Amino acid sequence: MIKVGVLGFGGLGQAAAQVLAPKQEMCLVAAADKAGYAYDPDGLDLHRCAAAYRDQGSIGHAAGVGTLSTNSIAELIQAAEVDGYFLALPNLPNTFMASVTQQFMDAGWQGVLVDALKRTSAMEQLLTLRPALQKAGITYLTGCGATPGLLTAAATVAAQSYAEVHSVTITFGVGIVNWEAYRATIREDIAHLPGFTVDQAKAMTDDEVAALLDKTNGILKLENMEHADDIMLELAGICGRDRVTVGGIVDTRNPEKPLSTNVQVTGRTFEGKISTHTFTLGDETSMAANVCGPAFGYLKAGVNLRQKGITGLLTAAEVMPQFVC
Amino acid sequence: MIKVGVLGFGGLGQAAAQVLAPKQEMCLVAAADKAGYAYDPDGLDLHRCAAAYRDQGSIGHAAGVGTLSTNSIAELIQAAEVDGYFLALPNLPNTFMASVTQQFMDAGWQGVLVDALKRTSAMEQLLTLRPALQKAGITYLTGCGATPGLLTAAATVAAQSYAEVHSVTITFGVGIVNWEAYRATIREDIAHLPGFTVDQAKAMTDDEVAALLDKTNGILKLENMEHADDIMLELAGICGRDRVTVGGIVDTRNPEKPLSTNVQVTGRTFEGKISTHTFTLGDETSMAANVCGPAFGYLKAGVNLRQKGITGLLTAAEVMPQFVC
Repeated sequence: MIKVGVLGFGGLGQAAAQVLAPKQEMCLVAAADKAGYAYDPDGLDLHRCAAAYRDQGSIGHAAGVGTLSTNSIAELIQAAEVDGYFLALPNLPNTFMASVTQQFMDAGWQGVLVDALKRTSAMEQLLTLRPALQKAGITYLTGCGATPGLLTAAATVAAQSYAEVHSVTITFGVGIVNWEAYRATIREDIAHLPGFTVDQAKAMTDDEVAALLDKTNGILKLENMEHADDIMLELAGICGRDRVTVGGIVDTRNPEKPLSTNVQVTGRTFEGKISTHTFTLGDETSMAANVCGPAFGYLKAGVNLRQKGITGLLTAAEVMPQFVC
Repeated sequence: MIKVGVLGFGGLGQAAAQVLAPKQEMCLVAAADKAGYAYDPDGLDLHRCAAAYRDQGSIGHAAGVGTLSTNSIAELIQAAEVDGYFLALPNLPNTFMASVTQQFMDAGWQGVLVDALKRTSAMEQLLTLRPALQKAGITYLTGCGATPGLLTAAATVAAQSYAEVHSVTITFGVGIVNWEAYRATIREDIAHLPGFTVDQAKAMTDDEVAALLDKTNGILKLENMEHADDIMLELAGICGRDRVTVGGIVDTRNPEKPLSTNVQVTGRTFEGKISTHTFTLGDETSMAANVCGPAFGYLKAGVNLRQKGITGLLTAAEVMPQFVC
């Protein structure tokens, strides 16, 4: 049984807890949000934790297992016995994931860390920690959500047919009905729009986000996004990062996807033919399923890598995720 | 520079040599067919080797580098310094790949072996060698062609979105103009037809194969094939082998594919939604590109695994292939 922790208990963190609930190989024992944490070595009660977060503002209020803290991540690291953490944390600011990672190293913690970060610049911050992570005995798998993650791994597999890869084009469709459940994610999306910086998006009030969405009929159209798929495919030797493009449409007022999420990998075969492989996600799969499933598949792979003595920083394009039963 | 050998120099082996020709990270130094072998530590001249095979019946006739031998594989293993071999050998009989593997172990050879075998029963033979391979210091990656291989890996990635995988359906289309260049492969396909056994197909003369193809207008329609994708996905914990089906259409008189090769992965998400992810290969990619590209991608991954001390038997569903530059 792999003991799992989740950092962040918003929409993504709670979906992660739901994904884990029926698993036989993994058990959620620890979780933290900004204001507190919860730990139960026998497994957290998802409903109690979700209720504490929803009704009282923090998982730290969960009766019997919760602790309120302004230093929740550092305290949880010390308090809990966990094999691997899924960092279901906001990407903003870009240095946040790297600073949390530094906390794990400072605490002398050893285990597996998995993130679903999105921005190239956030991953570049992490890459500077590669030697330190290896030394610290941490196996860190980065970019392990949907994109980057599931689609980057599919692109890596698809690339194998080609002598040269000309382009990797990722196009996603997301449909949600309640953007308020994904406050951090929506602001990250807004930060990709022309005319917005990361800091501006992060500083927006809920009313300002709602006003923006009113203007666009709830649609966010994103083009040429700064997405870490590019650096991951470059590091894996598949193609230069300039050949990777990511864009998509987010509909915040419709649970149906505005288009089928897909990745197209175009290249030249050894015979000189130009062709395109396409990997398309089923429309009924949610963002939460396509992020959390891969994240735990990589966490399991990370646990096995660590058992074989492999530590340091790896990306979702370098490791085959495993299926969590 | 990874020094590569190819066993088998028919259609698949020669395509493998062509795939390697422009690579900077790999160099083809050794090759063998039934009647001889060729070895040049500085790299084999593809055209000279292909001409010797075509005009004189064996690569052993290649001037300066060839040696005729009735025990070609065993002699090559002893003579050549090779980091990894691609076993581009026929699947028939089902024990052939395992018996070649035994030759490597008997010779005390250490390195990486990669195959593109197809039949479940052939892979089961190999699985019995797992402890012996680990002990021998060989990293063996099995099922690393197109299917199993590329499509099995894509199915493994796709499965991550689901709490439970209901079915994996692989459907391939192959179009070739000259089946005589793929004599062994075509007989392997025929062996999957109703009313044919492996032994019957293997014993067919070229005239008998031609007569059969005349009857079917050159089309071979294959359903519920015994394909190792099933055991690979079962071993990877993704689903029972009974949930994996492989079928396809081979047109031996038309270079265009009769249908687009694809794998569909259907499952249930943690929210209870049923959906299907689809990975479709570009029609312009040949069987040779989709088999040899992945095979060398896995060979490179195997070299890196070996450097980290990981030996034994692994499948294409357990390892992320690397891109060979």
